[in-house]
Amino acid sequence: MNIGVALKPGITEAWSTVELLARWAANKNIKIWTEVRSKPYLHEQVSFASRAEMALKCDLIIVLGGDGTMLSVAREIERNIPVLGVNFGRLGYLTEFPVEELLPTLERFLIGDYCLDRRMRLQAELVRHNSTAATYCVLNDVVVNKAALARMIELECRIDDKLVNHFRADGLIVSTPTGSTAYSLSAGGPIIHPAINAVVITPICPHTLTNRPIVADSNLTIELLLLSPSDEVTLTLDGQMGIPLQAGDRIRVTKSKNYFNLLRPANKNFFDILREKLNWGR
Amino acid sequence: MNIGVALKPGITEAWSTVELLARWAANKNIKIWTEVRSKPYLHEQVSFASRAEMALKCDLIIVLGGDGTMLSVAREIERNIPVLGVNFGRLGYLTEFPVEELLPTLERFLIGDYCLDRRMRLQAELVRHNSTAATYCVLNDVVVNKAALARMIELECRIDDKLVNHFRADGLIVSTPTGSTAYSLSAGGPIIHPAINAVVITPICPHTLTNRPIVADSNLTIELLLLSPSDEVTLTLDGQMGIPLQAGDRIRVTKSKNYFNLLRPANKNFFDILREKLNWGR
Amino acid sequence: MNIGVALKPGITEAWSTVELLARWAANKNIKIWTEVRSKPYLHEQVSFASRAEMALKCDLIIVLGGDGTMLSVAREIERNIPVLGVNFGRLGYLTEFPVEELLPTLERFLIGDYCLDRRMRLQAELVRHNSTAATYCVLNDVVVNKAALARMIELECRIDDKLVNHFRADGLIVSTPTGSTAYSLSAGGPIIHPAINAVVITPICPHTLTNRPIVADSNLTIELLLLSPSDEVTLTLDGQMGIPLQAGDRIRVTKSKNYFNLLRPANKNFFDILREKLNWGR
Amino acid sequence: MNIGVALKPGITEAWSTVELLARWAANKNIKIWTEVRSKPYLHEQVSFASRAEMALKCDLIIVLGGDGTMLSVAREIERNIPVLGVNFGRLGYLTEFPVEELLPTLERFLIGDYCLDRRMRLQAELVRHNSTAATYCVLNDVVVNKAALARMIELECRIDDKLVNHFRADGLIVSTPTGSTAYSLSAGGPIIHPAINAVVITPICPHTLTNRPIVADSNLTIELLLLSPSDEVTLTLDGQMGIPLQAGDRIRVTKSKNYFNLLRPANKNFFDILREKLNWGR
Repeated sequence: MNIGVALKPGITEAWSTVELLARWAANKNIKIWTEVRSKPYLHEQVSFASRAEMALKCDLIIVLGGDGTMLSVAREIERNIPVLGVNFGRLGYLTEFPVEELLPTLERFLIGDYCLDRRMRLQAELVRHNSTAATYCVLNDVVVNKAALARMIELECRIDDKLVNHFRADGLIVSTPTGSTAYSLSAGGPIIHPAINAVVITPICPHTLTNRPIVADSNLTIELLLLSPSDEVTLTLDGQMGIPLQAGDRIRVTKSKNYFNLLRPANKNFFDILREKLNWGR
Repeated sequence: MNIGVALKPGITEAWSTVELLARWAANKNIKIWTEVRSKPYLHEQVSFASRAEMALKCDLIIVLGGDGTMLSVAREIERNIPVLGVNFGRLGYLTEFPVEELLPTLERFLIGDYCLDRRMRLQAELVRHNSTAATYCVLNDVVVNKAALARMIELECRIDDKLVNHFRADGLIVSTPTGSTAYSLSAGGPIIHPAINAVVITPICPHTLTNRPIVADSNLTIELLLLSPSDEVTLTLDGQMGIPLQAGDRIRVTKSKNYFNLLRPANKNFFDILREKLNWGR
Repeated sequence: MNIGVALKPGITEAWSTVELLARWAANKNIKIWTEVRSKPYLHEQVSFASRAEMALKCDLIIVLGGDGTMLSVAREIERNIPVLGVNFGRLGYLTEFPVEELLPTLERFLIGDYCLDRRMRLQAELVRHNSTAATYCVLNDVVVNKAALARMIELECRIDDKLVNHFRADGLIVSTPTGSTAYSLSAGGPIIHPAINAVVITPICPHTLTNRPIVADSNLTIELLLLSPSDEVTLTLDGQMGIPLQAGDRIRVTKSKNYFNLLRPANKNFFDILREKLNWGR
Repeated sequence: MNIGVALKPGITEAWSTVELLARWAANKNIKIWTEVRSKPYLHEQVSFASRAEMALKCDLIIVLGGDGTMLSVAREIERNIPVLGVNFGRLGYLTEFPVEELLPTLERFLIGDYCLDRRMRLQAELVRHNSTAATYCVLNDVVVNKAALARMIELECRIDDKLVNHFRADGLIVSTPTGSTAYSLSAGGPIIHPAINAVVITPICPHTLTNRPIVADSNLTIELLLLSPSDEVTLTLDGQMGIPLQAGDRIRVTKSKNYFNLLRPANKNFFDILREKLNWGR
């Protein structure tokens, strides 16, 4: 069995957690793989691989860090491998396990006692001059937004080829249920339960105040056509990767065939996390 | 063939439209049924029946009036009959046909040239002292709200028996996609495309500002437990029917087996209506 | 010197706090007055008076309870007496002192070492058939709202006799800066710093989505004319006192000549309270 | 008498309006000044000057174009000259006169029959390494915002040296009442009546959902300290002028001594404009 460990750079606790995993795995016929840049800090016997290699060869990937690390790891994974997120102190929407629950959770994982949360992902296809320039897969959101000084963006949005609206706004977010508690929520979007096949289209600071977030079936195709003449518009994927856009570019967003398989704590559901993250109990 | 005509009371144009229908139907072996209270105002030959009777015997129901009339008619219809909504001047979300398009639309309906929009409905079961006190079917929304002077309501909300939250608010709306452009929108909810099996739970003026609207799969069971000691809380159905609630009452909301079949103009989709109603084009 | 003590009914800690005050005052030529309904629970020597009497004769009023108790006490006080709010465990916007800071604060008060926060109040005049039917003074807000099942309210709002808008909504809030963190905030209003002479007019679930909260100078006269034919509309004062309204009633809201003088902790300002109450630090 | 005319570039109607003004002024001892770049398009006798020169020598400035042109002209004007805004078809918040009302309005202006709306402006001082790097004057808003791909901004906000909050957001708007119907409104801010000495601090897509807009007295000093290490943060003035910021920069916002004097139509007040711009009447 192969377990990959992806780490947020520069976190000391992450290194000692990798060593803990190495000691735990030692007599179990389990191989622990981790990123080579943590090599100087590790005293236990582990193997090294890039995230892309781990995504290919591992049976489980453990992410040590926060939701940002999880999102960047997710972009490397196409197969349906389980992924387990560990946080160091601050609960994340995607990194729900405190470090002290890691080994017990792994023991249960080995005997098949775990539950997976199948999270929908979106595929974004950038179409330039009528041909596909690039294709991306996101777990949270596809965002078209303007540079700091740029004027409002003008975007035409279509769903299954039917005109939704010409948006004039700072930008537009197309978000999965998983992403609905991230940027879309800050921009005024609703919370979407992860078990529903939906996307939410949330305009960012729209000029027309009645341009409210729109929830649609994720089996529909959402197409954004950039009308602004400006070249200061960016396509942003999961808030981490940016591609400059040109007027006339189209972004075609569809449901990805690949789901993301999040290992979940047995005793904590989506609403438990929400209540804690959003201070509902107080 | 039997066509029922339900009317908003007191609209003169509605009576002349019934007469127009009667003349149109005269030589076509089509029987026009309408409500008896318009009898004194009609000079053409029509038959009379209650809305409930029309719902049982007619092949099509025409609603002359606004969205409010449509909602009240919808509560009488359990079968999958097509319903056609005509407005007199002011476009409705559910009454999309101007009166001058009525006869051409009917001609097309007779030869099967029409499209139906299957709209999800919700069933609300009022559970008191552990037994079902009543069951209702709505097209727009199930609302629990407080009286004018009453203090905040306290509601426990569960989805498939998992605690979502203890809400303290003026009230809570559980809305269908159809209802998402009605009361829920005013309370801060998103727009939900009618083709998705979703409900939105929108708190009204919640005490905790992070209690944002929640979109969930309509196949889940939403249960609201009224915790407030107050007896000044009302269960409101489609904004039209009110039932006083008691502390300890449970409202169990599920997807209704019965859909509502709205006849749609061929040349106008959901987003066309949205843009017009919400002044997006301006 | 006379100190009045108003209590939230039924709080055991409040009674022991009154006894603590009585012992503290005993050798200081200070007379402690409190409400007669707590008489059975008190073992120390205190005098009894109604809140209205205390408002007339005392040099300081201490409120033991929450913001609700403070609001009801405020309505009894017309003079510029300092008022000190003590909470039992849960910080309030108006009851900022924990009980353990009460005696030290009083010691400083006696030697003039304290700061007062002068809070604007609003006067609401109910005009029926062209004559003033009643006048009220509020610290938080004047609200016109509908009964649970009632249809939308229609209200014409004028500022200094200029038409602002015909509102169709669940209701309308006219709030002081103090009230801006209460009901108005839940309805979507902004936070208003207490040191500004402003009011905010916040519609509750307005039918027209662009009917956003309006901030105006509190020296202007705001007039609400109730257009709805319904008799199920209520004028609510500070969320505590309700008066049924009739169609044609006018509510004229102006700045009250009487300010409310809140004793503030030296080490805590408005923003400190905000950050704590709204979980900003987290 | 000298009248300056500033024009939005490239609008044909603007040139013919300048000619109309020239003919009207010809026999009236009034000199019309306009921008030299429109010289090739003008057949009537006018004088040429830069906007800055007009701001110094003219008794009235006419702006032909939209609100954007008005804002850029406003930045050139320090004196208390009246400014009259003309729109070509689309009503602006600041350009309220249709072109056909221009000459009648000027006739009334000549005999002193006009009303001026004194609009507050804000001064923004950029403090870098403890010294003032630059000072700007805006009519609408001072905005600190992030580049498209940049991570959230971290800003510390203080009012009169008291900590308000550490904001984590896409940006922060400090807006005048005039600016409250522009960008701040899109970001969720309230409408502020122009006659009040207030500013509104509106966070853009704040990470913490309870970071609601804050209205404060414009006599207070608002200080924003940029904490983000990123260099992709911009200070934007009236949405038109951008200055790159560095971590550690402070923006000190105070009320400007110079008001902006907007000539207003006698028959139209602020709320009339609002109702028309925000489609309230519909």
